Amino acid sequence: MPFVQISLAKGRTQQVRTAITQAVHSSLVEEFHIPELDKFQVVRELDTDQLVFPTSYLDVPHTGKIIFIHITAKEGRTVDMKKRLYQKIAERVSEAADIASDDVFIVLAENKAENWSFGRGQAQLA
Amino acid sequence: MPFVQISLAKGRTQQVRTAITQAVHSSLVEEFHIPELDKFQVVRELDTDQLVFPTSYLDVPHTGKIIFIHITAKEGRTVDMKKRLYQKIAERVSEAADIASDDVFIVLAENKAENWSFGRGQAQLA
Amino acid sequence: MPFVQISLAKGRTQQVRTAITQAVHSSLVEEFHIPELDKFQVVRELDTDQLVFPTSYLDVPHTGKIIFIHITAKEGRTVDMKKRLYQKIAERVSEAADIASDDVFIVLAENKAENWSFGRGQAQLA
Repeated sequence: MPFVQISLAKGRTQQVRTAITQAVHSSLVEEFHIPELDKFQVVRELDTDQLVFPTSYLDVPHTGKIIFIHITAKEGRTVDMKKRLYQKIAERVSEAADIASDDVFIVLAENKAENWSFGRGQAQLA
Repeated sequence: MPFVQISLAKGRTQQVRTAITQAVHSSLVEEFHIPELDKFQVVRELDTDQLVFPTSYLDVPHTGKIIFIHITAKEGRTVDMKKRLYQKIAERVSEAADIASDDVFIVLAENKAENWSFGRGQAQLA
Repeated sequence: MPFVQISLAKGRTQQVRTAITQAVHSSLVEEFHIPELDKFQVVRELDTDQLVFPTSYLDVPHTGKIIFIHITAKEGRTVDMKKRLYQKIAERVSEAADIASDDVFIVLAENKAENWSFGRGQAQLA
């Protein structure tokens, strides 16, 4: 059910990109309790000058290795679940891809259960 | 008012891509009752390895032909309207583009009427 | 905190693209009162036929210079703040990039303070 959209600079191998998607996914499985097979993601590679970020914000420094992870998920998770999710994603993406955890930017968009169709024209969660 | 963002694998002709956007749009016109001219979409073509999906989830099989349709629309539609929308989009995209209806993935993001500007700096729906 | 995703046709210089991102950002700073350093954006350039729009809608004409500005921001801004934001963005993007203000399309997605991580795995706004 989550739909994950990842934006990062060009230059990663497919192997590393796969490791990144798996890092995000396994975090969602463990912290948001989604099924193992519920892995739907899009990875968009951009030129460096298409990624805009400050060198530091809220005391967190950023570099051109920044990765934007936009997660759309069904509403209902607690603040604590979200906090644990961010921690896990940052740790695992950092390990998977030589990206500082500082450069793992996450934004979560929530919607209703009825707002999903996983194919076949059905609203499977409604 | 809907803003439709479509992600799919490279390799479709412009003619087919246009048929896909029209399939989504005519479904929105009929089921969400949007005006015929209210057609704003972006189509993003990706390499196959940038689309991540399971071979099957919730008994729906998926292939590299999967198409992610992300629709942002003003809130207020009923569950039944959404269900009919998904059915129609899946049917029509399938017909338009040699994509199995199983491979038509739809996620709906809802926002407020005041959250739209169709140009000229105005909030036309507020 | 806002995460701004911009989609426009290929062909702009980096200098113009930077002027566009700055036009959007300075408008957010002034009207949504975000910090000057809180600038996170992604710019996606597309082929002309990947941007779908009507020649006119709600008496606002559109051309291939159309620019889609998708802003995700923490909820809580008033309708008046949003209206002033759209006006300012349209004016400044128009000045920055030889784009008619009619062609500045804005959609705002709102979420909760706890839905953001600016790096390091922390939920800085929660």
